[in-house]
Amino acid sequence: MKNTTLHELLILKLRSLYDSEQQISKALPRMAQRASNPDLKKRFEDHLAETKVQIGRLEKAFRELEEKPAKLRSEAVRGLIADAAGMMKSVKGAELDAALIAAAQYIEHYEIAGYGSAIAWAKEMGHDKVRGLLEESLGEEEGADQKLTALATRGVNDAADDM
Amino acid sequence: MKNTTLHELLILKLRSLYDSEQQISKALPRMAQRASNPDLKKRFEDHLAETKVQIGRLEKAFRELEEKPAKLRSEAVRGLIADAAGMMKSVKGAELDAALIAAAQYIEHYEIAGYGSAIAWAKEMGHDKVRGLLEESLGEEEGADQKLTALATRGVNDAADDM
Repeated sequence: MKNTTLHELLILKLRSLYDSEQQISKALPRMAQRASNPDLKKRFEDHLAETKVQIGRLEKAFRELEEKPAKLRSEAVRGLIADAAGMMKSVKGAELDAALIAAAQYIEHYEIAGYGSAIAWAKEMGHDKVRGLLEESLGEEEGADQKLTALATRGVNDAADDM
Repeated sequence: MKNTTLHELLILKLRSLYDSEQQISKALPRMAQRASNPDLKKRFEDHLAETKVQIGRLEKAFRELEEKPAKLRSEAVRGLIADAAGMMKSVKGAELDAALIAAAQYIEHYEIAGYGSAIAWAKEMGHDKVRGLLEESLGEEEGADQKLTALATRGVNDAADDM
């Protein structure tokens, strides 16, 4: 059995991220629709726009590596979205916003870890252009996570506690 | 339909973390077994010991909140573990260590986000003892993530690139 190369490992990770971002782009509109806090709703809408740009960056990264964009099915992202859907079904009232933030932060952290590994491997192999593309997306995911924390501490959790 | 309280949301999150930690404690021995780098193997074994302590802390947190420890099935953690198992099947040679680190960092980030939300809610409600327990576990998860990054940059990725 032929050994896997680090190049192949990077391609697998990019495919998994490509699948994940597309799943997330389908989930975000449902999360935006269920959010009550207008800032949270807008955050989900803004992140949907960012996600579409991130999908385009992954396509550029594939091209840089002379690979066709392809998806590798991520069970993790499906599980994260399934858990978010479960929360949206079972949580009633103002607490839903707090639950949506928590669900979105799970998703952000999933992407932070995924881009982090891909960046480390791209760096190791000297793929600086690919690394740069992935670092842009990583920065957006970290920013999205911080903005969600700010929304939570700026009132959403407090509103939830008043109910 | 009765609105969910923030207290109930915290309990749901603790139940989901309780399920997740138990799933992770079952997955870690398989990951340790497949790791080639002795430091990585030891890291997984050490994290298994930490995970068992974290399960105990969650039980203490339930008791503090006068709730029986119970699990809420996390599809996300099952997906993360399924993706890790897929990697362990398909990746051959020295790259498996790099893939195992990436899979473990997905899991760490999942827990970092989960404990982060639970801590925010415990803080909001003034459950300082519960918050302290969860912060101890969060610190361990963040440490585990950093140690994995150190292992990756201290040779595992490099070894993978030499194959």
